[in-house]
Amino acid sequence: MTEVIRSTAEKIRNLQVQGARNVAIAAVKAIQIQAEQTKAKNKTQFLDELKEAQTIFSASRETEPLMRNAIRWLITQTQNANTEKVGEITKLVVSSAKSFLSDLEDCKEMIAEIGAKRIPDGSVIFTHCHSSTVTQMLIKAKVNGKNFKVICSETRPAFQGRITAKELIDFDIETTFIVDSAARTFMKNVDMVIVGADAITSEGNVVNKIGSCGIAVLAHEARVPFYVVSELLKFDPETLQGECEKIEQRNPSEVWSDAPKKLLVCNPAFDVTPNRYIHGLICEEGIIAPQTIVEVMKRSYEWLF
Amino acid sequence: MTEVIRSTAEKIRNLQVQGARNVAIAAVKAIQIQAEQTKAKNKTQFLDELKEAQTIFSASRETEPLMRNAIRWLITQTQNANTEKVGEITKLVVSSAKSFLSDLEDCKEMIAEIGAKRIPDGSVIFTHCHSSTVTQMLIKAKVNGKNFKVICSETRPAFQGRITAKELIDFDIETTFIVDSAARTFMKNVDMVIVGADAITSEGNVVNKIGSCGIAVLAHEARVPFYVVSELLKFDPETLQGECEKIEQRNPSEVWSDAPKKLLVCNPAFDVTPNRYIHGLICEEGIIAPQTIVEVMKRSYEWLF
Amino acid sequence: MTEVIRSTAEKIRNLQVQGARNVAIAAVKAIQIQAEQTKAKNKTQFLDELKEAQTIFSASRETEPLMRNAIRWLITQTQNANTEKVGEITKLVVSSAKSFLSDLEDCKEMIAEIGAKRIPDGSVIFTHCHSSTVTQMLIKAKVNGKNFKVICSETRPAFQGRITAKELIDFDIETTFIVDSAARTFMKNVDMVIVGADAITSEGNVVNKIGSCGIAVLAHEARVPFYVVSELLKFDPETLQGECEKIEQRNPSEVWSDAPKKLLVCNPAFDVTPNRYIHGLICEEGIIAPQTIVEVMKRSYEWLF
Amino acid sequence: MTEVIRSTAEKIRNLQVQGARNVAIAAVKAIQIQAEQTKAKNKTQFLDELKEAQTIFSASRETEPLMRNAIRWLITQTQNANTEKVGEITKLVVSSAKSFLSDLEDCKEMIAEIGAKRIPDGSVIFTHCHSSTVTQMLIKAKVNGKNFKVICSETRPAFQGRITAKELIDFDIETTFIVDSAARTFMKNVDMVIVGADAITSEGNVVNKIGSCGIAVLAHEARVPFYVVSELLKFDPETLQGECEKIEQRNPSEVWSDAPKKLLVCNPAFDVTPNRYIHGLICEEGIIAPQTIVEVMKRSYEWLF
Amino acid sequence: MTEVIRSTAEKIRNLQVQGARNVAIAAVKAIQIQAEQTKAKNKTQFLDELKEAQTIFSASRETEPLMRNAIRWLITQTQNANTEKVGEITKLVVSSAKSFLSDLEDCKEMIAEIGAKRIPDGSVIFTHCHSSTVTQMLIKAKVNGKNFKVICSETRPAFQGRITAKELIDFDIETTFIVDSAARTFMKNVDMVIVGADAITSEGNVVNKIGSCGIAVLAHEARVPFYVVSELLKFDPETLQGECEKIEQRNPSEVWSDAPKKLLVCNPAFDVTPNRYIHGLICEEGIIAPQTIVEVMKRSYEWLF
Amino acid sequence: MTEVIRSTAEKIRNLQVQGARNVAIAAVKAIQIQAEQTKAKNKTQFLDELKEAQTIFSASRETEPLMRNAIRWLITQTQNANTEKVGEITKLVVSSAKSFLSDLEDCKEMIAEIGAKRIPDGSVIFTHCHSSTVTQMLIKAKVNGKNFKVICSETRPAFQGRITAKELIDFDIETTFIVDSAARTFMKNVDMVIVGADAITSEGNVVNKIGSCGIAVLAHEARVPFYVVSELLKFDPETLQGECEKIEQRNPSEVWSDAPKKLLVCNPAFDVTPNRYIHGLICEEGIIAPQTIVEVMKRSYEWLF
Repeated sequence: MTEVIRSTAEKIRNLQVQGARNVAIAAVKAIQIQAEQTKAKNKTQFLDELKEAQTIFSASRETEPLMRNAIRWLITQTQNANTEKVGEITKLVVSSAKSFLSDLEDCKEMIAEIGAKRIPDGSVIFTHCHSSTVTQMLIKAKVNGKNFKVICSETRPAFQGRITAKELIDFDIETTFIVDSAARTFMKNVDMVIVGADAITSEGNVVNKIGSCGIAVLAHEARVPFYVVSELLKFDPETLQGECEKIEQRNPSEVWSDAPKKLLVCNPAFDVTPNRYIHGLICEEGIIAPQTIVEVMKRSYEWLF
Repeated sequence: MTEVIRSTAEKIRNLQVQGARNVAIAAVKAIQIQAEQTKAKNKTQFLDELKEAQTIFSASRETEPLMRNAIRWLITQTQNANTEKVGEITKLVVSSAKSFLSDLEDCKEMIAEIGAKRIPDGSVIFTHCHSSTVTQMLIKAKVNGKNFKVICSETRPAFQGRITAKELIDFDIETTFIVDSAARTFMKNVDMVIVGADAITSEGNVVNKIGSCGIAVLAHEARVPFYVVSELLKFDPETLQGECEKIEQRNPSEVWSDAPKKLLVCNPAFDVTPNRYIHGLICEEGIIAPQTIVEVMKRSYEWLF
Repeated sequence: MTEVIRSTAEKIRNLQVQGARNVAIAAVKAIQIQAEQTKAKNKTQFLDELKEAQTIFSASRETEPLMRNAIRWLITQTQNANTEKVGEITKLVVSSAKSFLSDLEDCKEMIAEIGAKRIPDGSVIFTHCHSSTVTQMLIKAKVNGKNFKVICSETRPAFQGRITAKELIDFDIETTFIVDSAARTFMKNVDMVIVGADAITSEGNVVNKIGSCGIAVLAHEARVPFYVVSELLKFDPETLQGECEKIEQRNPSEVWSDAPKKLLVCNPAFDVTPNRYIHGLICEEGIIAPQTIVEVMKRSYEWLF
Repeated sequence: MTEVIRSTAEKIRNLQVQGARNVAIAAVKAIQIQAEQTKAKNKTQFLDELKEAQTIFSASRETEPLMRNAIRWLITQTQNANTEKVGEITKLVVSSAKSFLSDLEDCKEMIAEIGAKRIPDGSVIFTHCHSSTVTQMLIKAKVNGKNFKVICSETRPAFQGRITAKELIDFDIETTFIVDSAARTFMKNVDMVIVGADAITSEGNVVNKIGSCGIAVLAHEARVPFYVVSELLKFDPETLQGECEKIEQRNPSEVWSDAPKKLLVCNPAFDVTPNRYIHGLICEEGIIAPQTIVEVMKRSYEWLF
Repeated sequence: MTEVIRSTAEKIRNLQVQGARNVAIAAVKAIQIQAEQTKAKNKTQFLDELKEAQTIFSASRETEPLMRNAIRWLITQTQNANTEKVGEITKLVVSSAKSFLSDLEDCKEMIAEIGAKRIPDGSVIFTHCHSSTVTQMLIKAKVNGKNFKVICSETRPAFQGRITAKELIDFDIETTFIVDSAARTFMKNVDMVIVGADAITSEGNVVNKIGSCGIAVLAHEARVPFYVVSELLKFDPETLQGECEKIEQRNPSEVWSDAPKKLLVCNPAFDVTPNRYIHGLICEEGIIAPQTIVEVMKRSYEWLF
Repeated sequence: MTEVIRSTAEKIRNLQVQGARNVAIAAVKAIQIQAEQTKAKNKTQFLDELKEAQTIFSASRETEPLMRNAIRWLITQTQNANTEKVGEITKLVVSSAKSFLSDLEDCKEMIAEIGAKRIPDGSVIFTHCHSSTVTQMLIKAKVNGKNFKVICSETRPAFQGRITAKELIDFDIETTFIVDSAARTFMKNVDMVIVGADAITSEGNVVNKIGSCGIAVLAHEARVPFYVVSELLKFDPETLQGECEKIEQRNPSEVWSDAPKKLLVCNPAFDVTPNRYIHGLICEEGIIAPQTIVEVMKRSYEWLF
């Protein structure tokens, strides 16, 4: 096992690397390096190394299907390789890693392009937390000449909404910033909610930053369409097999660093938005109903099953 | 005009005095002092002084019907006085002020007693922000032998939920503390939501700390009864006459002290929960449907109209 | 029986006189004339004349509680008269009729004043059909400096929305005109729906022009508050005693003058909006929850019961 | 304490006497006999006897506000008596008991009369369990010439629906009989649900036979109005003071007489229907919104508070 | 460019040809004629002609995916042709056009057959506007011996409901005719709503005549299933790529020919019904959930992507 | 026709064999025996025998898609046989029957495995009626170490809930038993509802034991996820072609054996739960959104169409 796997997993664990995309990218790059430095004598040993990396990365964070799917991709490619030669397998893994990263970049671009068309001119968009795919889409819409305003919520406890606000302001998008619990007050005049995703379950439910589902409920109450923006590979195939998506419980000190001793501070990182509150899933294939996610994956990512 | 009116109003304006009850108490006490120091020669001048005080206090904060009703009470008592003698009127105002403050204290006690009975044994209670009436009720329930847990939300931007958490912990009430946007995640296992009120409109809608209505919507989604705890004198008679309850907009720096210059930070202090989301209003007369508030007030506080 | 009763009832029947207020006014004036021309020899005969008029007017249109309550008022006043002299009774009826009409006018004025305050500056108001009380309120709001737009629906089959549109345009209120079935498309950006009423039931349900309740449902779907504007005397005391409010079925030819012979054309004049869809009832006492209508009437119009 | 109190309470406890009305009538009659047989020497002793009876009856069944209110009435009358003579007090209690029973009978008659008018001709009515007030209303409607059908659910575990079905069939009312869980299938074509009540809370919620609230939810889903038929004295004043209405837990053997030993069989007698599902409360004052129950009681039954 | 393209497009633009099917048929026939009269020298020129026709037809009306898909079909067939010979390509286009029209006719027949089975015997069906597919289905059900009634709304501004009513009456189907805003009054006793479609979005939302979605909301409120009848080729592939379905704004004079000058008359031709209100989509493949539309199209109309 | 077909069909008709799986298994085994005893001279005659069996079994019970699909499978296999020799066809049918039964058993096992993972530790599960797939899943979860409680409803009229309760108690699963109409009272504290299925329609609606849909509505009201457990072959392909799933009407005497003569006792065996109330369908492919059922079937059971 090369050192890069352990050190990268450690960075993921302690949040030096965060965000579903960044985590996946880091893991893929580490595995690529591992492949280049492999001491495996044959395919079996090579695969053992990959699976050890898989185990280590899986243990680093609970809710990261994109990273897990990326590693599954590399392992599947290796398993399907028509060769036993380690050098050739290494080349295959390296090129698979590169194509994965390149596809991921393309997806983001396509999603931004598709989503940007859906933003109505003169509209008010609500977003929560920070998603680079969401901000890229909004910026794309701005660049394409759409005129709109954004409301973004601060996203306690880590205030990722501030990152979103800064990115939008930098692109001259008129932005309003509010505390999370002001969402209902502002929702009445919103035309569209757009959030990212950390995971998609087999029923088409979406796991995203804590607060997302509450916003979805409030959007539903005010007849505001709620869209989720996500690469399809955030689908978690384990949910199809019955697993509940695990919700990471983060450090209480993020919420209140000097809380009274007897107080139980709970800090779940994500919540789950049921498909009935989701107007559309904006992914690299276009805008679809989230209920069909399994069929879409079976058609387009057959290797995942 | 004695100095005490201006200085008290200033303390209310700059939030040295805050909380609907504290604000009302401060104003009543200031007027009592003003009455004791009056230079009025006759009833007319005395009333002019009172009305000037009324004007000053009304301008100090936007959403304070309890304070306004308290002042209305003192003015009404003065107007109805069967005497023109300033000394006698002063005595009347002083005793009216004292009886008002004493009644207010009794109300709080009664509300705590009534509400404490409604808390089910073995239940989970959700509360938001800090209301001394709510915490007194919870403590009363604890003292009466009820066994229950409380979930309280931090209540951005000013973190009043921390005050609530500390008070409850001090009375050995098992308490869980969460960020505001985790309300939906925890709501499924809640048995009862209890919040305070800053104002009650003539339709029976309730104005309370920003976030309250979002919680009410989420409680409704999960079939959790949502109760409001309030003295009846938080009813705002101006809403009956058509006025919308004004929602105070507070300083953006409370939300983000070093926000980017071009960013619009909005900081509304309150939101409005429609009567259809309110299971019951716990007031000094007992637990009632909020829709009947005008009839209750006309029966019990006739002088207000 | 003087001729004026029959001729007025006939005008009401054939819609020469229409609108709940106009119908009530016409009936009161006719009874006043009848009283002035009475041939009754004593109170009993006088009352018999009144009751005959009541019977005739009741038969002229089905859904007219304001008219019926007006006649009840005149009969009650007569019954309570402390005299048996016909001349004195006549004077009493005439003055009662005048005070009724004057109060009715005052109510309309008060309602307009109260409702005008509730219209938010910069808002979009939706209205249906034509109600002189609603248009007076909107004009009052305009005169008071409120800036707002109105969307009004044409109101098939008789196109009363055109009357509303003309009145508003004449007062320079920016108005959009749509077919009835476009209500959902436009509702998303509406801030407030305001409609009149033909009758109010004891549960607080509101009978108004066909289409009103569908609009209420669509307002509810989009979190838009739905207000009803009405004099309290449109309350129908017979609903308290169990009667269903009768819904007038009008001439099919209003809908399709040359419909195919075998086609059943149905033309109900009104529908019923349940209290759960009504945000507030704007009446001469202020803005109240419709559920309390019986208590309000028992307090303010005791003679009705 | 005369024997009649204990024996009557025992009959209530072991369900020889059941139904809110029958229980109240039995208790009133027993107290009347006790009064006639009193050994009290003075008013104080007389009241002590009454209060002892009150304690015994209160302990006999948990959810019986009508009985409790009846006893409160007799005690209040005694307390207000302008005499200390036991003979006179006895007469007063006897006449109060008689007037109470007579009023109760009148109420039932009035409710039947009022409710019968509300049944639409040609309609389908759904009812649950057995309420003599409901069946009297249906029979009254039939006698008055209304043509309608009834669907009644069997009402497990005690099959009271069979009593209802028999009573209706005996009056030639076309009746369909179903298992409780078929309610949703049949609800689509129902025009009106009518059930009785065991208790009414201060918010206007209704306690009635287990299953009632589920039916209310299904009625709401299908836009079917859900009416509750009840004497106002089923209002429970203790709920105003914060108490939750207690729900009697009955013998598991009613559900499954030879259940497996380790199985926990739960048999709650009642459930609670929230006011938002109740279209109207049909009581002796007419058809009202349940939210106003406290105001109605304060106006009409002042002695209760 | 042959004249037939321009003249047909003009007829579509000025509504001489209308209805999604008729518009598609006219365009296909025009392109067939164009192909037969082509002056193209080679495949490239032939395709250029087709694309010019595509541009012209696309500009003729905004919401016509069936027509656009038809043209895409002809272009795709041409592009895939294994020949460069213009004569052969012409034959291919002509036969493709004929097979398209024939398939379209078959679809309608199949949809009618499938939908007719779903109509319950003894039921009440609600429909809006005029759709030849819907009326064919109803007539098929009648012919197959089903006994049912239809309620149809007049469909302002152009009264297409009158066409529907006439067609149904001609086939002895018992029909009731109402104004659009009476939909809620009649919905309670409806068993099934059936409407056509002008376009289907990638989420499974349905674009149809203005008023359709309001009816869907009212059907949902009363637990009435709402079905959409449509050929699958009304699916608009551009919505998958992010475009919002454009809603045609028609001439205000259709609504009010002599409207006051300052009045803004808005006349949107269609509205959008979200998939959550649609019980089933009746198409040539059977009755399906609208959410799956993209998967169905990818399986059955692969050439569209 | 061998006797086994008729006798098995008779057992199905008179409920000696019941439960969708048992019925299907019995029919397959009977056809297997018929095949082994065939007197057919050629493929055509063999197929005629199969189709006669199909007709007989179809007539035995109305709502049995699993049995019908099983027979379709055997017929399809026979039709596709590459031989005309009766001996070889018989072998094919026998092996097809065996593989069908074996697959059915595997499905049940897989479903139990998948569903068991979804049960949260420390949760309360609600189930209705008896489904061997549901109890196997619960037992599997228990065996896998999950700690949970079950609430089961008695399921009138035939009390199948008692079978469920006994099976669970035998595996030491803590179980509470209630009457059907107590479902709402207990639903508030439930974490998950799990029921079986008798048929699945093409929209993804589920036909199951009467009462299931009412429970789904109550689960929805309390934000409790409602899962359906079913083999995919309970999908009914005839619903895709427009047929409504027939609901079997069983003997009234099951409900009330000595009902009054004039009473109409209705005893529908099943109800239909619309897809919007179903959180997930747990089938052999995993947990999916029910809306996609047709796509799943077309992908995995192509022979069915």
